[in-house]
Amino acid sequence: MSKKVLVLPGDGIGPEIVAEAVKVLNKVNESFSLGLELEEGLVGGAGYDAAGTPLPAETLEKALAADAILLGAVGGPKWDKLEDRALRPEQGLLGIRKNLELFGNLRPAILYPQLAEASTLKAEVVSGLDILIVRELTGGIYFGKPRGIRTLENGDREGYNTYVYNETEIRRIGRVAFESAMKRNKKLCSVDKANVLEVTVLWREIMEELAPEYPEVELSHMYVDNAAMQLVRAPKQFDVIVTGNMFGDILSDAAAMLTGSIGMLPSASLDKNNKGMYEPCHGSAPDIAGKGIANPLATILSVAMMLRYTFGEGAAADAIEAAVSKVLDQGLRTGDIYSEGMTRVGTAEMGDAVLAAL
Amino acid sequence: MSKKVLVLPGDGIGPEIVAEAVKVLNKVNESFSLGLELEEGLVGGAGYDAAGTPLPAETLEKALAADAILLGAVGGPKWDKLEDRALRPEQGLLGIRKNLELFGNLRPAILYPQLAEASTLKAEVVSGLDILIVRELTGGIYFGKPRGIRTLENGDREGYNTYVYNETEIRRIGRVAFESAMKRNKKLCSVDKANVLEVTVLWREIMEELAPEYPEVELSHMYVDNAAMQLVRAPKQFDVIVTGNMFGDILSDAAAMLTGSIGMLPSASLDKNNKGMYEPCHGSAPDIAGKGIANPLATILSVAMMLRYTFGEGAAADAIEAAVSKVLDQGLRTGDIYSEGMTRVGTAEMGDAVLAAL
Ligand SMILES: CC(C)[C@H](C(=O)O)[C@@H](O)C(=O)O
Ligand SMILES: CC(C)[C@H](C(=O)O)[C@@H](O)C(=O)O
Repeated sequence: MSKKVLVLPGDGIGPEIVAEAVKVLNKVNESFSLGLELEEGLVGGAGYDAAGTPLPAETLEKALAADAILLGAVGGPKWDKLEDRALRPEQGLLGIRKNLELFGNLRPAILYPQLAEASTLKAEVVSGLDILIVRELTGGIYFGKPRGIRTLENGDREGYNTYVYNETEIRRIGRVAFESAMKRNKKLCSVDKANVLEVTVLWREIMEELAPEYPEVELSHMYVDNAAMQLVRAPKQFDVIVTGNMFGDILSDAAAMLTGSIGMLPSASLDKNNKGMYEPCHGSAPDIAGKGIANPLATILSVAMMLRYTFGEGAAADAIEAAVSKVLDQGLRTGDIYSEGMTRVGTAEMGDAVLAAL
Repeated sequence: MSKKVLVLPGDGIGPEIVAEAVKVLNKVNESFSLGLELEEGLVGGAGYDAAGTPLPAETLEKALAADAILLGAVGGPKWDKLEDRALRPEQGLLGIRKNLELFGNLRPAILYPQLAEASTLKAEVVSGLDILIVRELTGGIYFGKPRGIRTLENGDREGYNTYVYNETEIRRIGRVAFESAMKRNKKLCSVDKANVLEVTVLWREIMEELAPEYPEVELSHMYVDNAAMQLVRAPKQFDVIVTGNMFGDILSDAAAMLTGSIGMLPSASLDKNNKGMYEPCHGSAPDIAGKGIANPLATILSVAMMLRYTFGEGAAADAIEAAVSKVLDQGLRTGDIYSEGMTRVGTAEMGDAVLAAL
């Protein structure tokens, strides 16, 4: 079996944090004899600068051939003014998701006990928080057609997008969610807006239809506005949340921020065979790029997810997660998670500390 | 000039809380010689039970003839199983919004100093919070066509909705937002998803186009996922937020919950002449309906908004708001905002206390 990993550093802090994650990956590759082969590619603004497109053909080819992809982050002010939206960095990311059919996006929101203070929420509301958001990633309004901006007969312009899901798409993300719930606390909350949007009426119906196949999982439904409220009010009521692409984008960011340490949160985007792209939940942070101060832990933890989900190497994944926990115990902190009394370190120091802890 | 107020108690706790608000309205109507004429109507589940539809023709007629509407809340489990979605209580609400062209939805999220403890967020993050969310209410994906559920050639069903805005719709809500910002701290943040959705590319463009007309207002743009995060991270960075119907639904609920006292938050939905519907931000709370324990303050504060926005009676509005503040100072609390050492009161007692404080 081939075990190819494509590394896409991307833009902003991407190259810095990915460099640390690659150190960690190389180390476990050796010590656990994983037999992984790494290669690099260009994506996002880096792709545009080098090849005139955020998803160069060569990158897409490598991505299709790889078993797993490690992505840093894409985007930055440098490319925000590109008139042709198809050339913007985000399109590289969306293009990989779509072309590789990475429909299953897993976004854990975990509060590390060592970082409890970082949350803007009261300790009792978030202590021990551990939610998994399962977001559909290749459908919904992100990719629905027709879409565009047209001129009406009266001369007015009108913008339009299409929010669309068919039952096959809903069913496959539903299964990912039910199966994730089975491995956790067996509670699944499906988020929709079925009191207003027909597409989510179908969503709710299919989730209900799947439920009997997973009798141990307790399925509930919640409107998206209420879900946004409940995440602020009592986030620990949730175990697994499943929702569409757009709602998932919003809720997973809100959930991540509940922990106060978005620099700590990894994510996985999987296809039906668990081939996947792994990336930190945070963005490319152009304001601190190149300064060597970004937090590499979310990217390092993304490597752990990759080993667990794509390569089935649970022991190696555990080792990385334990090492991260250890450096937190040692009091090492990058600026984003720094608090009084801790030791402030840079990106490379943090990466080296994880290596040492392995 | 006619000064007609239509009172729509609706469902669940609606009748109880509206009764208290009507007491308050009657009192200021007299003491400030406002000359308002009140009448009642049926909407939501109450409309369905009495007339077989959530928006009886008589109610719509009265609504069209009124200058302002005071609504309690609609919905409840009793009507959730209605197969025909057009008959569900929510459709009464959506029908009034649409028929009366109440496109400008103002949703303040204010933290009352007396209730600072109620928030799940740390005091320093939310103390003094005072945000206004301006939500477009008669367009976007809520009303866009085509919409529905169809069967594809392969037998699969597919659900679809259309997210659409034309520039006229965007411009008119934009003006409401800029004008609101002018009356406040002159900061306006427009929330969109312009990196993915064309309809919001147009949204952003029109907001930019309006900016020169309001040179004192500092306009910024934020993606909706980031906005959801920033509301949790540092909500006080915002003054006025303007966004479309769906994003506004989600963000305004999240913002309301930041205060921890959604039972305190009123809202206004205005047409181009400031005719409007006023209602609490919270729902019909069927679980506590009929028990006399619901918090009537959001509905009472909705009356204040009505007097200020539709009738230009700032002094009467101020008086109501001052009275509400006074009862909070007195330590009176309904269950939803109760904390140790305070005096727990029921719906009617709270209403009476506001009357007495007037
Ligand atoms: C960059 C952007 C297109 C992307 C998205 O909206 O999916 C990002 O916000 C994310 O959540 O991965
Ligand atoms: C009841 C529902 C249709 C409504 C909406 O989504 O607009 C409610 O959530 C609101 O925010 O007023």
